[in-house]
Amino acid sequence: MKNSHQPEVKPYLITKSLTPENQETPIHFINDDIVDGKLFYRRNHFTYPHFTSSFYFLPIQGFVRTPRTFSFQDIYSLPSRTIKMVLECSGDKRGFFEPKVFGEQWEKGAISQGSWKGVSLRTLLQYTGVIDGAKEVVFEGYDYGERPDSNQMVHFSRSLPIEMALEPDTIIAYEYNNQPIPFKHGFPLRLIFPGWYAMASVKWLKKITVIDKEYKGPFQTVDYVYYPNKENDNGKFPVTTIHVNSTIQSPLNRKILKTGMYQIKGIAWTGKGSITKVEISFDDGHTWENCQLTSTSEKYSWVSWNYEWEARKIGEYTIKAKATDSHGHVQPSEPFWNRKGYGYNAVDYIRVKVE
Amino acid sequence: MKNSHQPEVKPYLITKSLTPENQETPIHFINDDIVDGKLFYRRNHFTYPHFTSSFYFLPIQGFVRTPRTFSFQDIYSLPSRTIKMVLECSGDKRGFFEPKVFGEQWEKGAISQGSWKGVSLRTLLQYTGVIDGAKEVVFEGYDYGERPDSNQMVHFSRSLPIEMALEPDTIIAYEYNNQPIPFKHGFPLRLIFPGWYAMASVKWLKKITVIDKEYKGPFQTVDYVYYPNKENDNGKFPVTTIHVNSTIQSPLNRKILKTGMYQIKGIAWTGKGSITKVEISFDDGHTWENCQLTSTSEKYSWVSWNYEWEARKIGEYTIKAKATDSHGHVQPSEPFWNRKGYGYNAVDYIRVKVE
Repeated sequence: MKNSHQPEVKPYLITKSLTPENQETPIHFINDDIVDGKLFYRRNHFTYPHFTSSFYFLPIQGFVRTPRTFSFQDIYSLPSRTIKMVLECSGDKRGFFEPKVFGEQWEKGAISQGSWKGVSLRTLLQYTGVIDGAKEVVFEGYDYGERPDSNQMVHFSRSLPIEMALEPDTIIAYEYNNQPIPFKHGFPLRLIFPGWYAMASVKWLKKITVIDKEYKGPFQTVDYVYYPNKENDNGKFPVTTIHVNSTIQSPLNRKILKTGMYQIKGIAWTGKGSITKVEISFDDGHTWENCQLTSTSEKYSWVSWNYEWEARKIGEYTIKAKATDSHGHVQPSEPFWNRKGYGYNAVDYIRVKVE
Repeated sequence: MKNSHQPEVKPYLITKSLTPENQETPIHFINDDIVDGKLFYRRNHFTYPHFTSSFYFLPIQGFVRTPRTFSFQDIYSLPSRTIKMVLECSGDKRGFFEPKVFGEQWEKGAISQGSWKGVSLRTLLQYTGVIDGAKEVVFEGYDYGERPDSNQMVHFSRSLPIEMALEPDTIIAYEYNNQPIPFKHGFPLRLIFPGWYAMASVKWLKKITVIDKEYKGPFQTVDYVYYPNKENDNGKFPVTTIHVNSTIQSPLNRKILKTGMYQIKGIAWTGKGSITKVEISFDDGHTWENCQLTSTSEKYSWVSWNYEWEARKIGEYTIKAKATDSHGHVQPSEPFWNRKGYGYNAVDYIRVKVE
């Protein structure tokens, strides 16, 4: 019988579903500004794709002057760009909508952050040229399957407007945190489109097609659309930019505490601009105090924040956090309810009891 | 670049807190009637204890004729007993109480099942003898720390009435699923007291003391007590036997389905007696139909059940499951609310949408 030792205690992905695999990041237990690939949330529409990566080529075709098929080596040898950024599923926090909506009941962990390295898509498009009148660029992944609304097999596929596809930060990534992208996150090549919810960042890129019209695939005309009404499609519009948002990581919700000093800490992020302010309230949002931002707010990445709190009196407390970004967007007190449950970004809150 | 392959998809423990470690079993993804030690829920009051297991001895002392210290080898060499059984935290499903309560917000996975092997405590007590007038047996674990209600260090410690301590199924266990008990689950010796919520089954046994009065430790006079009122302690009574209960494992809550045939499946269990019936309702509990029990209901262990459902019409469905045991206990439609959130066993339900 060997001597005992303090065993390792570590968080795991939080399993939501296995077919397809959907598991969220244990976001309350992430202390770093880089999420290890093993704890990066997994969000799939289908089972994992099969393809032979030793014969991997990426064709760029369609409304281009010279269609071309790039080898992985071609792409790897071109000038690279590295972006530290948030990837957030547009269904993050879906489980908190009231009335509740259907679909994966993500809590607060359908979000991760890390460094993606790749080549700007515009660099590749310089090789193929783009024909005048090109409107959109369609990205098709190797993953496919049946959708609930059809019995046909469809690939996961989405488009970007040409001007966005040509932004230098739109990259064809081959590394995550200085390692080849983990298979479950899009190996060998993944589109990375910072600032939008992560459905835009197509995994396992199979081909890229420039088109001269609007793309109508179901993953942007049926799913990833805000439907403000339960019973009809009136007023629908597409899911795009990440909303300004924050999450209280500590203390944990419903925790019982002793009186004493506590660090209330968390993260805040936004898709456009940077976080300028995180505020905290102990009186249900009547008054707000500024938190300290403990990391600098960079474009695309989350900022960590904290607030030193003395829990002096016994009782129950509601603690709310509210982020503001450099475009003046502020977390609303109530979420924008929509039938498919996208883009939840209401003020975050926890309840604790001091005994 | 190696060929891709379908990567392994597996569930993990669901992290609730790390200090102390509280992680729940991904119960919706457990298909076996034995939970692997790695997916067994972890529930701790304190950080893990330190002790030297190579000098491990278990003293039995107090109101006994001949106090004696048993070596692991002594215990291992005595006749053994193996019990396949549910261990359920009394806070299982706490997160579902309304109004919400404080404490770990367990969902449906603070429960596991497997085989525990050990020696009946009565066998050990035959060696020490018990003095007439003995009332209770106190089990102290090696784990200790501060409680929120005191600044003193306390060990986790609980008692059983002498007559229950002498039941043959009260065992000092040394194996789980034919392996030494994993350290996090009580290695080298754990009390196993089937039928009661798992706080009774003290881990990392340090010593056993027979006493001639009522034990008043905080883990049975403050915690693990039902307090029916929010504001006072009137009507309090101790947490003991596991309530009759069930969990729908599949489909997952808030799942979007196509029309077609589905297996609705789950588990049901009770602390006393066995499960005689599991019923399902599609009309909010007005009418109930019997499910098929797909495993035999043994004392202490859960039964698996299923129901073949044809999702014919599109729409939203509430599916409820209700278990009945051989003592006539039935899951109530509303849980018994209590301030610390123990013993939740209301009818289980999910909502699904057929598109």
